[in-house]
Amino acid sequence: MSRSAASVPGFYSVIPAGGIGSRLWPLSRADAPKFLHDLTGSGQTLLRDTWDRLAPLSGSDRIMVVTGRAHRAAVEAQLPDLTDPNVVLESEPKDSSAAIGLAAAILVTREPDVIIGSFAADHVITDVRGFRRAVEEGVAAARAGYIATIGITPTEPAIGFGYIHCAGPLAIDGAPHAVAVESFVEKPDLATAEKYVADGNHLWNGGMFIARADVLLAQLGESNPRLLEGLTELATAWDTPRRGAVVDKVWPSLPKIAIDYTVAEPAAASGKLVVIPGDFDWDDVGDFASIAKLHAGGRKSDLAILGENARVLADSSTGVVISQSGRLISLIGVTDIVVVDTPDALLVTTTANAQRVKSVVDALKVSGRDDVL
Amino acid sequence: MSRSAASVPGFYSVIPAGGIGSRLWPLSRADAPKFLHDLTGSGQTLLRDTWDRLAPLSGSDRIMVVTGRAHRAAVEAQLPDLTDPNVVLESEPKDSSAAIGLAAAILVTREPDVIIGSFAADHVITDVRGFRRAVEEGVAAARAGYIATIGITPTEPAIGFGYIHCAGPLAIDGAPHAVAVESFVEKPDLATAEKYVADGNHLWNGGMFIARADVLLAQLGESNPRLLEGLTELATAWDTPRRGAVVDKVWPSLPKIAIDYTVAEPAAASGKLVVIPGDFDWDDVGDFASIAKLHAGGRKSDLAILGENARVLADSSTGVVISQSGRLISLIGVTDIVVVDTPDALLVTTTANAQRVKSVVDALKVSGRDDVL
Repeated sequence: MSRSAASVPGFYSVIPAGGIGSRLWPLSRADAPKFLHDLTGSGQTLLRDTWDRLAPLSGSDRIMVVTGRAHRAAVEAQLPDLTDPNVVLESEPKDSSAAIGLAAAILVTREPDVIIGSFAADHVITDVRGFRRAVEEGVAAARAGYIATIGITPTEPAIGFGYIHCAGPLAIDGAPHAVAVESFVEKPDLATAEKYVADGNHLWNGGMFIARADVLLAQLGESNPRLLEGLTELATAWDTPRRGAVVDKVWPSLPKIAIDYTVAEPAAASGKLVVIPGDFDWDDVGDFASIAKLHAGGRKSDLAILGENARVLADSSTGVVISQSGRLISLIGVTDIVVVDTPDALLVTTTANAQRVKSVVDALKVSGRDDVL
Repeated sequence: MSRSAASVPGFYSVIPAGGIGSRLWPLSRADAPKFLHDLTGSGQTLLRDTWDRLAPLSGSDRIMVVTGRAHRAAVEAQLPDLTDPNVVLESEPKDSSAAIGLAAAILVTREPDVIIGSFAADHVITDVRGFRRAVEEGVAAARAGYIATIGITPTEPAIGFGYIHCAGPLAIDGAPHAVAVESFVEKPDLATAEKYVADGNHLWNGGMFIARADVLLAQLGESNPRLLEGLTELATAWDTPRRGAVVDKVWPSLPKIAIDYTVAEPAAASGKLVVIPGDFDWDDVGDFASIAKLHAGGRKSDLAILGENARVLADSSTGVVISQSGRLISLIGVTDIVVVDTPDALLVTTTANAQRVKSVVDALKVSGRDDVL
């Protein structure tokens, strides 16, 4: 086995598989969230693609999946190599601090010096070698005591992603490209995004974190002692018969907060965060415009067609059609269109309006039409 | 009963209920043609609207419907007052000369001096009084031996209709507005249509004919003796036990030809045709743009929604949605859109492309996908 194909010593992958993906309604639903769909045409779900990308890095027996109880069966069907000790079920969603923090707390209890890497279940990366190089540097930085994130070198002034503002380079053994983080920046407007891409000092925030589990938990505890206390109580009981009772008591009481606020931003502010520039393709497939772009390979003249047994008859039309109903779909003279055809709901919009899809979901919630959410 | 509500003496209505309406696919189908749909939001099918418009003119016992065998049950369900002697079933479609000609031939056998008026089953007219005035003048012209058509005063330079080029006025008792016909003109381009509307000498060809049945048949026989011979043979046997056998023998042999070529144009050329200008609203509802226009009442900012139990959630969208599936339909930021949602087929196009819908039907035929036609 060549060096690059061997697993990374001491490394454990964590996949938080949560979030519905509201901007991908009516494809993504409460009972069929984004990570359970094949949005790339790979023939596999995004979750399975994520697993396949991580298994060579940590070994398939060292991938922990944190997901909702409702998705257990679907997740296990997708990941036949996933073992029971690596399944962490949430009785209700508590956002990323609790999800990743619980995985860290369980793993550090089992293996005190474990280095974990957390990777969303529903992002797209095809350059596996580029991804591996970045993870290896991230693990090296983690070993040196840092919390590492992977930032993606922007290929365009995207307004749908957050950015990482880089500071100067650091000298970390095994992480030659690691740089300090100046700050995290929210999704910018187009002019700002263009400036970011031009200055070369900004990377896309891919939401990937690599750290010693104990370091990550210490940072989390500094920001939110109550959360750390709860996670520690859960982890202590996890591999014992008391797990169920403690989960029922503690989990509902945990605060709902993104790991950006409990770990990433405080660590950046105190100089503990480093970013590894990732020179690989990456997309969070956040909306239908992103799906259209992924499939068109940059060509505006294409119509992307997704869905098993899709029957599409298109004339002078571009954009994306997602067929889940088996019905014949006919398009005539519609450009940059988005058509999502499911058995109980149909969406027609344009790629330019893709970010507004969430507002429909919000409207449906307000009007009590949960049957299609 | 006031004079205007009494029926027109000697008058018999004929409704040829044929034609699928390919430009309205996937709403209109072989088994659910245009005339069996409610396209106006009246709560009734176009066929029933047509019946209701004609019943006061001829009496409901004097309306003959010519339709395909396959549509008999649906037609009778729509028209409970339709009596057996007024049902003429085609074993296969033979175009309007045979359909209207057979009705004329049957009726003239029963009632030698009958005046018939033929009106499509799937056109929209809401100004019943204006329509009645035109029909009454048409009947007067028919009584004087003319073949009368009703031409619609154009309200815009439509390119989807044929036009009638008017000649000078005639002096016909009871038909003060009747004018001679110079010629029939095919669907024009926009510049020509604008000229037509400006010159005031052109009317839309509404395809409505009023004539003594014997006069109409004589004209038809002049143009196509073989067709008249077949129709006469059918009519002679019609009200006898030989009907079935004669239909089986004769009908399949009849030529397929539009009444425009066998009656209207030859009659115009020989001075036997007159046109009554109709100052009422009229639309042949030929495509989805026409439906959108009918519903929007001229406002471009509207989204027309058709379909029982339609569930539509629209944001910044205009055009027309036709829902036959019961699914939730969500539109975001699509303008002049046409969405037709049926249980087995979905169409997404724009009003500007409405005339191109027929090309999809043609493509489906060619590719053998008759299941959705």
